[in-house]
Amino acid sequence: MKRILLTIAYDGTRYSGWQKQLSPEVMTVEGELEKALRVLFRSPELTCVGASRTDRGVHALGQRATIDVETTIPVEKIPLAILPLLPQDIIVVKAEEVPSTFHPRYDCVKKTYEYRIWNGRIKNPKERLYSTFVYCPLDVEKMDLAAKKFIGTYDFAAFCAAGSAVSSTVRTIFDCYVKKEGNLINIYVTGDGFLYNMVRIMAGTLMAVGQGKISPNEILQIILSMDRRNAGQTAEPQGLTLQEIYYNFQGKSVDSLD
Amino acid sequence: MKRILLTIAYDGTRYSGWQKQLSPEVMTVEGELEKALRVLFRSPELTCVGASRTDRGVHALGQRATIDVETTIPVEKIPLAILPLLPQDIIVVKAEEVPSTFHPRYDCVKKTYEYRIWNGRIKNPKERLYSTFVYCPLDVEKMDLAAKKFIGTYDFAAFCAAGSAVSSTVRTIFDCYVKKEGNLINIYVTGDGFLYNMVRIMAGTLMAVGQGKISPNEILQIILSMDRRNAGQTAEPQGLTLQEIYYNFQGKSVDSLD
Repeated sequence: MKRILLTIAYDGTRYSGWQKQLSPEVMTVEGELEKALRVLFRSPELTCVGASRTDRGVHALGQRATIDVETTIPVEKIPLAILPLLPQDIIVVKAEEVPSTFHPRYDCVKKTYEYRIWNGRIKNPKERLYSTFVYCPLDVEKMDLAAKKFIGTYDFAAFCAAGSAVSSTVRTIFDCYVKKEGNLINIYVTGDGFLYNMVRIMAGTLMAVGQGKISPNEILQIILSMDRRNAGQTAEPQGLTLQEIYYNFQGKSVDSLD
Repeated sequence: MKRILLTIAYDGTRYSGWQKQLSPEVMTVEGELEKALRVLFRSPELTCVGASRTDRGVHALGQRATIDVETTIPVEKIPLAILPLLPQDIIVVKAEEVPSTFHPRYDCVKKTYEYRIWNGRIKNPKERLYSTFVYCPLDVEKMDLAAKKFIGTYDFAAFCAAGSAVSSTVRTIFDCYVKKEGNLINIYVTGDGFLYNMVRIMAGTLMAVGQGKISPNEILQIILSMDRRNAGQTAEPQGLTLQEIYYNFQGKSVDSLD
């Protein structure tokens, strides 16, 4: 029996998120992936363990999941072998054998998300599925200043969707910055973990900074208030992409796409 | 009666091209736009005259079309007024009044197309609808050298799909270059007009150059041969976007998106 770590990229537009649902009519990325894996490995009981539960409409370039299989298919051939069994919007980018004790969620040391904004006078139909549209010109310098205030270890309760039950709302943000390329504004954030909707609330707050509604100097106050009402709105899901998940295994971290 | 010039952006994925078809079941961009315009202007007979017949699956950021209407809606308000009447993948970017003698096709002085290639080891699901995927690493410097050989006035019969009946296959290419940004390779080409499938055949030829199958110095020979068989394959439609159409009217050319 081998434990195999898969790196998965998907366009989340058509899916009700990553996680498989009890109702088989609800289409999820994990559900479609599992179906394909069961066919490939002729194993009707196979299940996968995902690293991150991305929401409805959220995309991924570097999602991870493990499977335990008995197979003669060489591990590195799995991405190509599974390609014809998957829908066009889900791709297995990489497969590698990991120790049987490896866990895609518990062994994760950090994750990077990208949040994409189309900031222009006019919507761009080619960007509508992968960004949020903001008409009012955003001050990117201020947004970047504000982004850097998130770096550190804090109780991020103010950036957690109401109703989520986690034992601790303390998280560490290693890096957070904002970059502009033409009409696209990208927010990048790397942390040891994220609360429910945390990146989307951070993105909504940074958009409010860009519009002058919140000053960069207020970010720390908002964090320390631990009150969700002080942060910005939850930004739309389609702007969010899980870029990469990092593990400290075999002494290297693996690039998802190059 | 006013003649109004519309600038239109669309994601061509769902459409059988720009041009309205006789069969009402065939969904086209022009067909959907006309339906919305007829509702907005309460004019069941309204038709629009498009500048460029983009193919099935091809996108546009700067398509143009004119309509003749009797209306009290201020012209500059048309983009916002028509927004709720259009599907999400079609946007009227701009509306401006033009002289009654203006024709969107005959008065066009040049057009710019972009052809987008995702060149990487792995497909990117977020790019699949807006680029063509090439696995083998492309030599962008060679492609750019070859692109510049297209600049000039030539008989481009070798770059015209078979079966197209045009009176002349002579066209002028003003500019053609190739740019790489990460895994994306973009071909930009500006000309006074293009033959049927011309940009896609040019893109396919430049991809063959990038793979070392054709040398940049062979481009001129291929053009002069006037034989379609000497050029590269017709590249897939989803990589192509009509970026901009230029007119010399009122002394200015209008940007489609900013």
